[in-house]
Amino acid sequence: MSDYEAVPEDEAVRRVRAFQEGLAAAGLDAALLVESADLYYLTGTVQDAHLLVPVEGTPLMLVRRDLERGRAESRGVEVRPLRSLRELPEALGAAATGRLGLELDVLPAGRYLRYRDLLDGAELVDAAPALMDVRSRKSEWEVGRVRAAGRQVALAQRHAREIVRPGMTDRELMIECEAVLRRAGHQGPMRFRGINGEIFYGAVLAGPDAAVRAHSDTPFGGPGPSPAVGRGPRGCRIEPGAAVSVDLVGARDGYLADQTRTISIDGLVPPLDRALATCEAILDGIEELLVPGQSSELLYRFGLEIAEEAGFGDGWMGSGPGRVRFVGHGVGLEINERPFLAQGDTRPLEAGNVIAIEPKIVLPGVGAVGRENTYLVRAEGGPENLTPDPA
Amino acid sequence: MSDYEAVPEDEAVRRVRAFQEGLAAAGLDAALLVESADLYYLTGTVQDAHLLVPVEGTPLMLVRRDLERGRAESRGVEVRPLRSLRELPEALGAAATGRLGLELDVLPAGRYLRYRDLLDGAELVDAAPALMDVRSRKSEWEVGRVRAAGRQVALAQRHAREIVRPGMTDRELMIECEAVLRRAGHQGPMRFRGINGEIFYGAVLAGPDAAVRAHSDTPFGGPGPSPAVGRGPRGCRIEPGAAVSVDLVGARDGYLADQTRTISIDGLVPPLDRALATCEAILDGIEELLVPGQSSELLYRFGLEIAEEAGFGDGWMGSGPGRVRFVGHGVGLEINERPFLAQGDTRPLEAGNVIAIEPKIVLPGVGAVGRENTYLVRAEGGPENLTPDPA
Repeated sequence: MSDYEAVPEDEAVRRVRAFQEGLAAAGLDAALLVESADLYYLTGTVQDAHLLVPVEGTPLMLVRRDLERGRAESRGVEVRPLRSLRELPEALGAAATGRLGLELDVLPAGRYLRYRDLLDGAELVDAAPALMDVRSRKSEWEVGRVRAAGRQVALAQRHAREIVRPGMTDRELMIECEAVLRRAGHQGPMRFRGINGEIFYGAVLAGPDAAVRAHSDTPFGGPGPSPAVGRGPRGCRIEPGAAVSVDLVGARDGYLADQTRTISIDGLVPPLDRALATCEAILDGIEELLVPGQSSELLYRFGLEIAEEAGFGDGWMGSGPGRVRFVGHGVGLEINERPFLAQGDTRPLEAGNVIAIEPKIVLPGVGAVGRENTYLVRAEGGPENLTPDPA
Repeated sequence: MSDYEAVPEDEAVRRVRAFQEGLAAAGLDAALLVESADLYYLTGTVQDAHLLVPVEGTPLMLVRRDLERGRAESRGVEVRPLRSLRELPEALGAAATGRLGLELDVLPAGRYLRYRDLLDGAELVDAAPALMDVRSRKSEWEVGRVRAAGRQVALAQRHAREIVRPGMTDRELMIECEAVLRRAGHQGPMRFRGINGEIFYGAVLAGPDAAVRAHSDTPFGGPGPSPAVGRGPRGCRIEPGAAVSVDLVGARDGYLADQTRTISIDGLVPPLDRALATCEAILDGIEELLVPGQSSELLYRFGLEIAEEAGFGDGWMGSGPGRVRFVGHGVGLEINERPFLAQGDTRPLEAGNVIAIEPKIVLPGVGAVGRENTYLVRAEGGPENLTPDPA
């Protein structure tokens, strides 16, 4: 049997209370949630369900499929059946006529329009910002899950360094890393919030293929095994001196850990070596600045300035129109959580934020390099690297 | 380099024309699409883009990120940049004030509300049914992709039979099958349309764990590695006589192939053996009935009746509230395409439909068995099994 850890009951209760404070601050009477990561966060289980979180009192999970399993796995919520959406107005009680928050960032428009018809006495607004705000402050238990996911990645990174050979393709190398992650307890499916949000273990990309821009909101994407996927490795042969970006995502009890190492055979040829040293210097510098109250945007600009000084401004966090305007992203149950260390985002960091920081430089036609760790922002003692290299 | 096949230009043009006929029949002036599978289907590329398909004339792809790659990979569409959503009304031209179809089944509500504000002269309606209808009739080229995905699955199924050992867990067996699929050219990420649509190679489930109900719309789900995932194997030890359901999904150039085999060590103990024989008889019977014009619902009922006659009515396609009301689902770029062989769906099958048919029986506390192939419905000569066993 798997040795997973269930969400502790007091943890689930604290999360709901924090979200209820967010609802109150936003002037909402309740939230009605359906997305899997949101349900798991607040209840400890993923069900085919509607979760009603009133601004005060016990949440109510209305389960369509398996009431028994919903009751067995959930923590701190009342569980009742819902056979049909038509029963929803009655099941929601007073919330059916209040100011009701929905996950407008992920809820399909068709479902939204159906709720609008069914709940014509309610004012439907967005509850996602309040929930994503709560989710951005991780508990000790959550940090433990990310740490465990980080240990999976460390094993896979070591394996990549051990087996990389001239003539092997980046795709072959990635497939072997995937197997190591899985055998180390990786949960399999990973979550990327939003329409078209796809994540599959990260990406191993070698040589010029790493500099190929993709549709995704990432510093580099790669060509993909076919245009149908459009990102990830296609099968570029690894040559001595070339950069191989090994960007891997561990996953444990729902929580992700994101780490990139740049490896090579016989060392990197110039200027890839200097570009990688620049990324390493940026990551070291950002580590020093990773404290509560810090401006997210300042960290992005800090990296940009060092990259420009080193002559790599054009390749900073991508190239041309493929460039992204961030140097880090929150990580938790989904790979794109708050906070974002992004241009224009002046919100201060908070203790409990878990952030993947990934300074990367792209040299079109040549390759791409970078270094990434997932960090916990702590009130004292500086950040903790949740993806350390093995001793 | 990977040996992918790009969507042929004449194929892309035919798809767009068929969709335009669907738009005309539904009284739409144009459709504005953003989902990855839909974009790939109509253009041959996945971009961070809006695709405008007018009811007549050449589609226009408005690309936010990489214009060059959008132009290089796309077939039969005009490609222009779109820097911001604010430019959308002008870029859409006449379509901005017409009857405009959106993917209401997947488009997030927040984005829908933004479009409603930006395009206040347009009437926004659902274009997904028209597109899913066109996508349900596969071309020869598409069928070739599914056939290639089916060959991956055949290799993995053979591997499962070769390596299964007493004491091994279902999770361990699944992880080894995943590696075989990947090494055989599996593309990695797979697509399941809709919010919470998660698919990760299918599932290998052994013994009583296969009878554990999950949140997904599948006959059996399994407990999952943790409640955070909630489906798939947890790590049930495989004992002699127990049923091991090996449900695997191949993926090639975007297209999926879905197959289940039930394997065991030293044969299945009763009544699992008889339950599996019942599923095999049902699949054989449905094969005979798989012709254009056939009622989808009739095939579901055909299976139900045979299962009931054999005394397995209670476990037919799941148990209790976890039961599903279908025996098959269309397969293509996504695992849940049209047609659905479902209760209440009387639409006739059409030549070109590609359908995974999966009679399954669940015996709570004991296990689950079933057999599944992915078939092409043909005008003459009966269906083609796109997931044959190796010779």
